[in-house]
Amino acid sequence: MADKPPRRPRAETPKGFRDYFGAEVTDRKAMLDRIAAVYHRYGFDPLETSAVETVEALGKFLPDVDRPNEGVFAWADEDEGWLALRYDLTAPLARVAAQYRNDLPSPYRRYAMGPVWRNEKPGPGRFRQFYQCDADTVGSGSVAADAEICAMLADALEAVGIERGDYVVKVNNRKVLNGVMEVAGLAGEGKDTERGIVLRAIDKIDRLGPEGVRALLGEGRKDESGDFTKGAGLSAEQAAVVMGFTTAKRDTGAATVARLRDLVGSSVVGAEGADELEAIASLLEAQGYGPDRIVLDPGVVRGLGYYTGPVYEAELTFQITDEKGRPRNFGSVAGGGRYDGLVKRFTGQDVPATGVSIGVDRLLAALRAKGRRTGEAAGPVVVTVMDRDRMADYMGMVGELRQAGIRAEVYLGNPKNFGNQLKYADKRASPVAVIQGGNEAASGTVILKDLILGAKIAESATLEEWKDRPAQVEVPRADLVAEVKRMLGQ
Amino acid sequence: MADKPPRRPRAETPKGFRDYFGAEVTDRKAMLDRIAAVYHRYGFDPLETSAVETVEALGKFLPDVDRPNEGVFAWADEDEGWLALRYDLTAPLARVAAQYRNDLPSPYRRYAMGPVWRNEKPGPGRFRQFYQCDADTVGSGSVAADAEICAMLADALEAVGIERGDYVVKVNNRKVLNGVMEVAGLAGEGKDTERGIVLRAIDKIDRLGPEGVRALLGEGRKDESGDFTKGAGLSAEQAAVVMGFTTAKRDTGAATVARLRDLVGSSVVGAEGADELEAIASLLEAQGYGPDRIVLDPGVVRGLGYYTGPVYEAELTFQITDEKGRPRNFGSVAGGGRYDGLVKRFTGQDVPATGVSIGVDRLLAALRAKGRRTGEAAGPVVVTVMDRDRMADYMGMVGELRQAGIRAEVYLGNPKNFGNQLKYADKRASPVAVIQGGNEAASGTVILKDLILGAKIAESATLEEWKDRPAQVEVPRADLVAEVKRMLGQ
Repeated sequence: MADKPPRRPRAETPKGFRDYFGAEVTDRKAMLDRIAAVYHRYGFDPLETSAVETVEALGKFLPDVDRPNEGVFAWADEDEGWLALRYDLTAPLARVAAQYRNDLPSPYRRYAMGPVWRNEKPGPGRFRQFYQCDADTVGSGSVAADAEICAMLADALEAVGIERGDYVVKVNNRKVLNGVMEVAGLAGEGKDTERGIVLRAIDKIDRLGPEGVRALLGEGRKDESGDFTKGAGLSAEQAAVVMGFTTAKRDTGAATVARLRDLVGSSVVGAEGADELEAIASLLEAQGYGPDRIVLDPGVVRGLGYYTGPVYEAELTFQITDEKGRPRNFGSVAGGGRYDGLVKRFTGQDVPATGVSIGVDRLLAALRAKGRRTGEAAGPVVVTVMDRDRMADYMGMVGELRQAGIRAEVYLGNPKNFGNQLKYADKRASPVAVIQGGNEAASGTVILKDLILGAKIAESATLEEWKDRPAQVEVPRADLVAEVKRMLGQ
Repeated sequence: MADKPPRRPRAETPKGFRDYFGAEVTDRKAMLDRIAAVYHRYGFDPLETSAVETVEALGKFLPDVDRPNEGVFAWADEDEGWLALRYDLTAPLARVAAQYRNDLPSPYRRYAMGPVWRNEKPGPGRFRQFYQCDADTVGSGSVAADAEICAMLADALEAVGIERGDYVVKVNNRKVLNGVMEVAGLAGEGKDTERGIVLRAIDKIDRLGPEGVRALLGEGRKDESGDFTKGAGLSAEQAAVVMGFTTAKRDTGAATVARLRDLVGSSVVGAEGADELEAIASLLEAQGYGPDRIVLDPGVVRGLGYYTGPVYEAELTFQITDEKGRPRNFGSVAGGGRYDGLVKRFTGQDVPATGVSIGVDRLLAALRAKGRRTGEAAGPVVVTVMDRDRMADYMGMVGELRQAGIRAEVYLGNPKNFGNQLKYADKRASPVAVIQGGNEAASGTVILKDLILGAKIAESATLEEWKDRPAQVEVPRADLVAEVKRMLGQ
């Protein structure tokens, strides 16, 4: 029996992980750079924590109430106990805010951008490594901090290319909901279970719709699979008060606040929530952020179960076509709010914080849907190799082009088959190929092939329209840079 | 006995990991952005692979012969078997080159920048997560690819702020060493052990010095701890040939090549190596890269044991003061070379590749030593809060400043103690504080405090020199932006 060759490793990413090539990298980078410039102008400082944390510092759970059991990637370290990859950028912020509490300015405004990891079952479009982009203000209880983040979010969306009118930042407040619960008779210690059910139900309104939520406020709800979820057992009147909260939006901020004041009646916390919303609206007004950009909208309920005060969400209002060809609103691309106890796990002290997270992949998809690609995707000018012995000449050409700021390459594969060189230029999305054979070299010229025009001619039935613009010109070698610039429209 | 409170988690990074704040993030980013712009101009495309790979795809070893046993961070995944964090950017490139071999252009020029992880004992300045910055050309056996990377490296160093004259890229070739070994009678299958010892010895010349290497070429070497390492057992003549290789540099590239031709005599591979060096020098000359930037230097031996053809290293030639106050050359900041078998593990095929890795932290340290900080480190203008009820006014001011492109913040902490606000501004390295109390508001003015000047006055004994420039001015509210710009020198 002959020896078997050793089995070769498979060249594959693990399931749920992927690679990003070329413009996928630069488009995202360009978008994040623009967001970072806005955050910088607002006085936020960048923070880059390590990807690896102790499991102890990280905590073993995600903050989102919907998925408390989602896992992290963790392993036992010889010296340090259990280590894990961060699952978001908030848990590391909590650790940093505690670890450096004597050194950091207070309040501490920071932004963070980078990959996070989730040990979840991968699915279509659902990856186990993805980017997050967060901004938080730690150590300020003032609603001015919330208002500031809403304004910054609006500015960031415009900075990346979402036009005014194509987005709206909606603001709500958990305290108003607490007031509404008081009115509905759900306050007090004995009502923990009911309040929990109401919070979880409200938080799922996007998925279940108003009918589903109303069912969960009452007797309960049977889902498609037939499973029954027990409801909060609220009376019709109680449920109406809670549901009234989610539909309290009126034409103006003032009218919305008035409606909320009606709903929360004499509840102290509810009135506080309404005051906060009013204050946020007036602070934003003072900076020129009108309701065309930021609105009070009690219909925003996502995260109300998690946050403790103001909650905000950025929605893109333009329509896209879904996979079935139906138009629908693009929807949410960012969300956040105020939360207590960021560092309490570490220090025992309550530190107020408020912050926003932009959905990097969703916002990128929105920019693509709008035809805004911000990264540099231009292919290089390709200098072909007709004569292997004159490589120094070709590298001289490419050097001149690069000196002039033009992206350019010399073909570095086997030059024998010229067709392969043009195929290569095509794969590189090259706009111009430079060709110099023996004849051209002797007469001191180069041939420039307009590959974009060439591709158009190949596609087009009416050659007529191109006849005035030759797809190929022979120019003096000395004019190489100037002529390439002209062809590139520079 | 009272209940004990639950033990709180420690707010600490795991040992060997660290956080990066503010300018530490932006300085590095600005440097990498400039390098990326050069790589882009050379036609290199960005590639961002996932941090996590299968252990199988990654291979279990580092390519550096000096440390074959360094570990990775690995864990068992439910579905995917063993996963691990990448330990460099070359192993993922190998996997990508194999996985997408039918889709990628060939040759494939790519650059990659990002963190890598090493499961090593941490030490001072030695971290378990750090940045790498690589550029490689896969699929070209031409020395033009090596020459191109040397030129690109020189351009990248100048782009980040290392001036011409302060660096040199040195080029050597493993094939010349192979020829030298033939001449020394170390060719052939029976001499594997000796060749291995010679390669490892040569590779350590930086650490052991010429004496140490010579000892390892002969009988062997006893280190400081008394441990004896057996040598290759070369005769004095044999050792002289090998050592002659490392000192073959002459005044001109041509003279160096001539000297190498002498050394390798009739060795075919040695002559090939000398030819390659000559070709690289002439290709670079054609692009205007003279010996003030890139030189042939057979004294560059680091990595010769790993690479298979041309080897290159960028050295910074300016002097810094070491921890004992002695001047020394800054030294190497980047290195690379040609290697075979990048994807052979996966596909069984040899694919030639050549590439460079820039030491991100070392190059950053060099820029700092040169006083070149490229990130935006400027602190924000701080608008203080004299009257809590007029927060909308203060946010209006900060909004105007930001609109004008000025980095600005309103103080969001408890405004009661004004001293705390100025301490905060100090901690933020703020250049200007804006103050508007009731009197100023009534008279339609604001006070601008020049904090940089203030700090200088506080330091300086001779107040005289500052008397013409007041550290504080009262200006009309309407002139806020213009006056702040003036103070910032904009």
